[in-house]
Amino acid sequence: MTTMEIMGANAKAAARVLLTAGDLKNKALLAIADALIENCGAIIAANDIDIKLAKENNTRAALIDRLTLTPARIEGMADGVRQVAALPDPIGTVLSGSSRPNGLKIEKVRVPLGVVGIIFEARPNVTSDAAALCLKSGNAVILRGGKEAINSNKAIADIMRNAVEKAGLPKDCISLVEDTTRASSVELMQLSYLDVLIPRGSANLIKAVVENAKVPVIETGAGNCHVYVDDTADIDMAANIIFNAKTSRPSVCNAIETILVHKDIAEKALPAIKARLDEKNVVLRCCERSAAILEGVEPATEEDWYTEYGDYILAVKIVDTIDEAIAHIAKYSTGHSECIVTKDYASAQKFTDEVDSAAVYVNSSTRFTDGGEFGLGAEIGISTQKLHARGPMGLNELTSMKFIIRGNGQVR
Amino acid sequence: MTTMEIMGANAKAAARVLLTAGDLKNKALLAIADALIENCGAIIAANDIDIKLAKENNTRAALIDRLTLTPARIEGMADGVRQVAALPDPIGTVLSGSSRPNGLKIEKVRVPLGVVGIIFEARPNVTSDAAALCLKSGNAVILRGGKEAINSNKAIADIMRNAVEKAGLPKDCISLVEDTTRASSVELMQLSYLDVLIPRGSANLIKAVVENAKVPVIETGAGNCHVYVDDTADIDMAANIIFNAKTSRPSVCNAIETILVHKDIAEKALPAIKARLDEKNVVLRCCERSAAILEGVEPATEEDWYTEYGDYILAVKIVDTIDEAIAHIAKYSTGHSECIVTKDYASAQKFTDEVDSAAVYVNSSTRFTDGGEFGLGAEIGISTQKLHARGPMGLNELTSMKFIIRGNGQVR
Repeated sequence: MTTMEIMGANAKAAARVLLTAGDLKNKALLAIADALIENCGAIIAANDIDIKLAKENNTRAALIDRLTLTPARIEGMADGVRQVAALPDPIGTVLSGSSRPNGLKIEKVRVPLGVVGIIFEARPNVTSDAAALCLKSGNAVILRGGKEAINSNKAIADIMRNAVEKAGLPKDCISLVEDTTRASSVELMQLSYLDVLIPRGSANLIKAVVENAKVPVIETGAGNCHVYVDDTADIDMAANIIFNAKTSRPSVCNAIETILVHKDIAEKALPAIKARLDEKNVVLRCCERSAAILEGVEPATEEDWYTEYGDYILAVKIVDTIDEAIAHIAKYSTGHSECIVTKDYASAQKFTDEVDSAAVYVNSSTRFTDGGEFGLGAEIGISTQKLHARGPMGLNELTSMKFIIRGNGQVR
Repeated sequence: MTTMEIMGANAKAAARVLLTAGDLKNKALLAIADALIENCGAIIAANDIDIKLAKENNTRAALIDRLTLTPARIEGMADGVRQVAALPDPIGTVLSGSSRPNGLKIEKVRVPLGVVGIIFEARPNVTSDAAALCLKSGNAVILRGGKEAINSNKAIADIMRNAVEKAGLPKDCISLVEDTTRASSVELMQLSYLDVLIPRGSANLIKAVVENAKVPVIETGAGNCHVYVDDTADIDMAANIIFNAKTSRPSVCNAIETILVHKDIAEKALPAIKARLDEKNVVLRCCERSAAILEGVEPATEEDWYTEYGDYILAVKIVDTIDEAIAHIAKYSTGHSECIVTKDYASAQKFTDEVDSAAVYVNSSTRFTDGGEFGLGAEIGISTQKLHARGPMGLNELTSMKFIIRGNGQVR
């Protein structure tokens, strides 16, 4: 067996213990939170090595910032773990049940998935976040972070494994792949011990996972989101929502990349929208008709409609009808979050019925697509696929179910 | 674009129409049922070609029987479609909802998956069954049957496509891949237009799909199921359940393949169980200890614990404890259906808590793992994976969900 296969087998064995771990899971989570604080110095020492290497490799300042751990950030990680401990345990929830005519009593009960693989990039705080959510939902987790954070991740994972063991659960509830080569990444994507693989990171990472995985994958993250400004829209509201959805945090997946504006409101709305976006020097990439209305904008190409800029850039297109807007979204969107700004009842209904994305908004910012904002209590990622989970994923989305059937001798 | 890609794009377009098709879906289903009856002669003529070819190829009689369509069987197919039409429409169901502190109203609503690919073998009646379930749940479907039934499948698909169009929906709600080469099968498994791929058939087919697919797959079917006879079991009940679960239909996935018997009841129980199974000449493959109790049995090898016989063969193993039984199931089971026969409360609780299979039974036959028996109204297959769907899958399992968020200008 390879190192990875041994890790998989050990995780599977730990997952069996977790099936009935009950409140020991919370005990382990609180032990993790305490241990992170106690070992703050060791984590920062390991993190220093990563930062030193990153600087030697001329890594961008923004990336170094994401990589950097401070006592305050480690306190934040511990708080996050404590918050997960405080959430209700999803396992054992009876989802439905019935008595059949033959007397069989059938229940559908929430159970853990088993072994969850998480492949992520850069930010070392994902290590404790993801581990806490998996542990709480009764799953063993195999974590694989990026090579930039490997020393930090190793320190954090060691601390968590020891804390879990001290609390009375197997260490192997949490594992970290220490080999950060591409080969080890592909081996993890094909490890038959995994019940699900969740990639968290860039579009390239997710693409590589979908191409290589032989285990079920939940795709997360890619967000080419839209706001459609209907002909009846309140223009101030539209400008405000677009300003928020584009500029409050351009790098995240629920930020918008393209606005679609109805032709009958374009001449009034576009200058008002641009005036707001100018506050943050947003570059507009415009279709021919919108470019004719606005000054100081760039021309948009077909490529722009597909692009997730993650930056202070916004594509702009005038549409003749709401149907054209919906068709544009169907063609170019990644199915993450879309919004209509309208005063018209029928337009709102049509948009929410016909737009097939994870989150469809009326008169509100796409930036709300988030587990915390939706009241899930926590978030392991935002699914952009339709199978198993769609949109923000909380603890429930880290579970499966089974049927329990109780009889007294029934045969068929 | 290849023929397959064009089919995918057309299916995607049809799926958009189906999003809001409402009762037109039922109209189309009833039109399909009528058309199947009206065109019974044409279907049987096409089926005759398949049967002639099968006989020329010296196909097994059992397979030819599964392939054969008669007026009565076509009537049965039409009835099946009508039953699906009569089921409640799952689309639009509000699964949950809340008002957030900022006034946003969030609903989680059931929506179709989009485009479903189904790869199946031999039986041409699957063509109408699967198409009806997909259509009812608002999905476009791309069907790919085996080459043995290609003429029958073409006739049935043509009739369904025309009926769907007559009812006012796009033909491309239902498509059939007419190229039955292996290359076309692999192309379908990697067709990016698919939202999910469901293989229905042999273990080899399912393995090929999991190896080759680049779209999400729901694994179905493989069933290495167990009955564990606890030391407190009612021996008559145990023998009756084992007899039913092994012999009522040995070829199906919810039939059992191995029994595990507690050492303290083995000497009494095994002869009684064997006496029942002798009625159907079931071959027993026994571990050393059980072979010492029984006469006229074969020795079991390690391979037997993994085998889904699908035949009148049963593996037998004596275990020292319920824990050993649960560990055996964890190691060898495909996670389909398992049963404990017991009079002991704690044993029943332990078994249902710790056995991680889709259906876990107390004192009843594993043969009940079936959409109809579970009251789902219909069944597209039995999932043996943990993601999205587990156990018998009905209409709900052919759906996804989306969040609809209604606001009045909220920004984050």
